[in-house]
Amino acid sequence: MSPRAGRRPGESVTRGLILAAAKTAFSERGYDATSMRAIAREAGVDPALVVHYFGSKVGLFEASLELPVEIGALVAGLLEGGTDAVGERIVRTFLGVWDATPGQGPMLAMLRGAVSHPDSADRLRMMLAHQVLQPIAAAAGGDQTELRASLVAAQVVGLAMARYVLRFEPIASASPDVLAPLIGGTLQRYLTASLDPGSGDPAQQHA
Amino acid sequence: MSPRAGRRPGESVTRGLILAAAKTAFSERGYDATSMRAIAREAGVDPALVVHYFGSKVGLFEASLELPVEIGALVAGLLEGGTDAVGERIVRTFLGVWDATPGQGPMLAMLRGAVSHPDSADRLRMMLAHQVLQPIAAAAGGDQTELRASLVAAQVVGLAMARYVLRFEPIASASPDVLAPLIGGTLQRYLTASLDPGSGDPAQQHA
Repeated sequence: MSPRAGRRPGESVTRGLILAAAKTAFSERGYDATSMRAIAREAGVDPALVVHYFGSKVGLFEASLELPVEIGALVAGLLEGGTDAVGERIVRTFLGVWDATPGQGPMLAMLRGAVSHPDSADRLRMMLAHQVLQPIAAAAGGDQTELRASLVAAQVVGLAMARYVLRFEPIASASPDVLAPLIGGTLQRYLTASLDPGSGDPAQQHA
Repeated sequence: MSPRAGRRPGESVTRGLILAAAKTAFSERGYDATSMRAIAREAGVDPALVVHYFGSKVGLFEASLELPVEIGALVAGLLEGGTDAVGERIVRTFLGVWDATPGQGPMLAMLRGAVSHPDSADRLRMMLAHQVLQPIAAAAGGDQTELRASLVAAQVVGLAMARYVLRFEPIASASPDVLAPLIGGTLQRYLTASLDPGSGDPAQQHA
């Protein structure tokens, strides 16, 4: 996001044209059906410039979301310590990002957009799936990566809804130290436990 | 919701006045700080009429939400078979209600309202907490009823977001038979397992 040294006048205009085309393309056609070449054409720029500014399709997609954090670095950090306790780390990182943003403005705007506009829901889903949860589920090494990723999504988005939107107590004011083991345990199970019904459902074992 | 035999003209007006006053009161002051007597005063009717039409404060609150289902009966049904497998039954009942409503209109409107207006978020939280989740958590017999209820809320609201709003696959199109054991296991753990960190986190035991 910081301006690079030696930037020519016109660079930010070109970058803006590409970003605008990318937002439209990802919203209308989805992540998979959108190519960098098509975005270049729609922005009226050379495809090499798209690569020059955004590196890759994932990088372009992330930039088009205008997120307050750099997702790739976040995910790499989550996976650095292995996947034995990745569930707890996801909760701590997630709460860290949300809690650090006064009023949770950009994230609440994303949720609000998703609930009101199917296009925004598509973008939020693609971001969570392709950039965050499927890479984590794949690294955790389980089968059924997409099912595991969507189970994690259901718990993490629900945590955001309960803490920041509906403000259920005590979740709304609990410290990450309280929530990380409880909800992290669920994420860990979704990522690494058997998903086979009957064969070791932890809740049943524990009851 | 069905009109009663022998209803006098003017009854529906009175009922409407009470409902309008109740919606305002519950939104502005919250469930706990609102009395039926105050609602009667604000509606300009005799308190006996509030009891006559709505039976109790819970009944009045539920009517003020204009839900597509009768919550009390739903919760009683959930608890009928005991609490050993109540987690799975919650998921099946929840999906049954949502899936049965084409386009999920009223429920999505409730979520949309909650994300956009703090007042609507308060009403949805109060309904879920007081009428659904705290009674279930209390029946399940665990300690820390409010924490358990809010954990269940975080998972159930997240399931709705993942399936009907963000449309994460395969959760969006999976049958209740697939989802009930997976997500029901989480709810069961939130309701009945130890919440003490270290003393039997099922995910850790399983890993």
